[in-house]
Amino acid sequence: MPQTYPPIHPPQRLLFTPGPSMVAPRVYAAMSQPVVGPLDPFFFEVIEQIRSLLGYVFSTRNEFNIAISGTGSSGMEAAVVNFAEPEEKFAVLTNGFFGARIGEMARRQGARVVRLETAWGPALDPQQCREFIRREQPRVVAFVQAETSTGVYNQAKPICEAAHEVDAIVISDCVTSLGGMPVLVDENGIDVAYSCTQKGLSCPPGLAPLTVSGRALERRRARKTTVPSWYLDLLLLETYYEGHRYHHTASATMFYALREGLALVAEEGLEARWERHRRNHLAFVAGIEAMGLEMHVPAGDRLWTLNTPRVPLGVDEAKVRQYLLQERSIEIAGGFGPLAGQIFRIGTMGCGSTPENVLLILRELEAALRLEGYKPAGNGAAAAEKALTAAV
Amino acid sequence: MPQTYPPIHPPQRLLFTPGPSMVAPRVYAAMSQPVVGPLDPFFFEVIEQIRSLLGYVFSTRNEFNIAISGTGSSGMEAAVVNFAEPEEKFAVLTNGFFGARIGEMARRQGARVVRLETAWGPALDPQQCREFIRREQPRVVAFVQAETSTGVYNQAKPICEAAHEVDAIVISDCVTSLGGMPVLVDENGIDVAYSCTQKGLSCPPGLAPLTVSGRALERRRARKTTVPSWYLDLLLLETYYEGHRYHHTASATMFYALREGLALVAEEGLEARWERHRRNHLAFVAGIEAMGLEMHVPAGDRLWTLNTPRVPLGVDEAKVRQYLLQERSIEIAGGFGPLAGQIFRIGTMGCGSTPENVLLILRELEAALRLEGYKPAGNGAAAAEKALTAAV
Repeated sequence: MPQTYPPIHPPQRLLFTPGPSMVAPRVYAAMSQPVVGPLDPFFFEVIEQIRSLLGYVFSTRNEFNIAISGTGSSGMEAAVVNFAEPEEKFAVLTNGFFGARIGEMARRQGARVVRLETAWGPALDPQQCREFIRREQPRVVAFVQAETSTGVYNQAKPICEAAHEVDAIVISDCVTSLGGMPVLVDENGIDVAYSCTQKGLSCPPGLAPLTVSGRALERRRARKTTVPSWYLDLLLLETYYEGHRYHHTASATMFYALREGLALVAEEGLEARWERHRRNHLAFVAGIEAMGLEMHVPAGDRLWTLNTPRVPLGVDEAKVRQYLLQERSIEIAGGFGPLAGQIFRIGTMGCGSTPENVLLILRELEAALRLEGYKPAGNGAAAAEKALTAAV
Repeated sequence: MPQTYPPIHPPQRLLFTPGPSMVAPRVYAAMSQPVVGPLDPFFFEVIEQIRSLLGYVFSTRNEFNIAISGTGSSGMEAAVVNFAEPEEKFAVLTNGFFGARIGEMARRQGARVVRLETAWGPALDPQQCREFIRREQPRVVAFVQAETSTGVYNQAKPICEAAHEVDAIVISDCVTSLGGMPVLVDENGIDVAYSCTQKGLSCPPGLAPLTVSGRALERRRARKTTVPSWYLDLLLLETYYEGHRYHHTASATMFYALREGLALVAEEGLEARWERHRRNHLAFVAGIEAMGLEMHVPAGDRLWTLNTPRVPLGVDEAKVRQYLLQERSIEIAGGFGPLAGQIFRIGTMGCGSTPENVLLILRELEAALRLEGYKPAGNGAAAAEKALTAAV
């Protein structure tokens, strides 16, 4: 060096991954808008809009709605480090990878972590959760509403009710539900919910929306032990988002992106957006089943944002993914942990959840499976099209 | 809601702040390039380029060069949480706000924090640092190379030498030096250096470049106590950046931006870039002094990236800043803590460090000071122009 570096030229992928999802054109446009400083009055206007819009997409009247300056995982860590305390009981109800990750984060806080671990597939059983919570009497209960590793949607309400009976606060991972299916923070009674920007909100990764109930905030304010993280300490972040005093240099670019992503949700309407995701998900499932594949998660418990068909016997799923990526510039994901090699994980979320994309990915998946020797039972795209027409 | 939200339309600011600085057009262009997933082979190509370019701008042969998915402060926290340990002695040499912040982060780790605190203005005294380190025999020594709160450049070498004598590792905050003036990780003997993207690298905020010496990495690997942060645990991050296995969903957009920012440094050449910053800084100082203002930091210890003239007696600096922002769409910063109301903080860094910008800000500052009743001793812009011509 010095030498010349031609400008970056990324491939144009069709993203059907569990995240990131396709970014909305309006979001891309916002990111080339001029940066302002973190104390600029305009930045605070953007923040106020985001906070109000976050209340809308989280379906909450909470006042503490912010975006953490990190990816979705930093939202998880913010939730855990502020509410897990050394020697205190922290319950994790887990049926997948991300539930386990919450437990690992709480362990690092020195909390006494107790785990209800069930199979990576079906939803958490409400009765089993209730009994576990009543028996363990934890201070915090954490679970994943939308488990990205399996494609299952866990019902929040029974967990929150049982947790509140024993005066625990509830942390819910909404990384793969926000903006794509009902999160319903207030109706469910969730105390701390976090998410990301790069899935249902059609932004790039980079921020972690987070909402905290008054009840949890009171708990946080009364906390006696030090929160080990300065960067993620909610009371310090409050001095910035509420008090408008410097904490860290928040990224105007990322906040512009999030504002646009949230504006798109508000303009579509949250219920209409959920319905779009549901309809496209159901069409995808109709197509998958017509081809003779099975869904990993039982009907009724499936995410509308992330679909997990089982890999047909004899098919090497890595080769399917490799073909799609290299030959078609399409990215889907596989399973991992106990589900390695057993499922595909195919996202239909945010602005990527369209009838056209459902038909496209079904056709491409069919072609890829045929190359691997699989003979589909029927025409997936045709079945999906029929489901889409019937749904109108 | 639903209602309509017109696309975001930020004001076009001229950023002369301590950060963010003006973003390079090429960086803006990169951020509207299509997002890819964090495990996409193309993403890893970008990461490899960034790691190599980080070695160049940090002036190091370290292999562990990464970018943390957060702002500069997350880089500070990553450095502290991985190397501060409970009950172990952690020395902070501090002559400003950001040194104090490192101490606060180390305190949160349960480390025994010992502080050498000196006035907010002159550089740290090498002899005093040496004696302090020899007396305290800490495990870790931390200091700020470029103190953003005061505009001072602290010499790393004597600190690193003394620290290594007692087998301590050295953490250096290079947030306001990287890409604008010599960081020289290897030559100075810095073990852990972190920075940000939004100053000398002309990118928006959002990532924290970080480099770790082999010696420090060995220390980290031998550590017995748990690192409380999962998000910032360097050994977990290594599994992603080195091992190419999923850890968190890194932001393609931010990595594209950083790659372009670093490419611009490499194309200009690091020494040429330093020289550009030095020349423009000296011209700014010539202008400031011609106007009859004084610099807060003694000559020779000043940052080339961030200039801190003292506020003339009788001038309300908040009004100066307000006028510049509201009437001229120019952002500069004031002092805070013990320097509140006493200094301006005026950044000339990254692609914003140009002769044109130096002349512009001097003229605008002069006009603003006149409105506040200050009569400049001479023509600042003319003196700066003369200095620029003489320097060629």
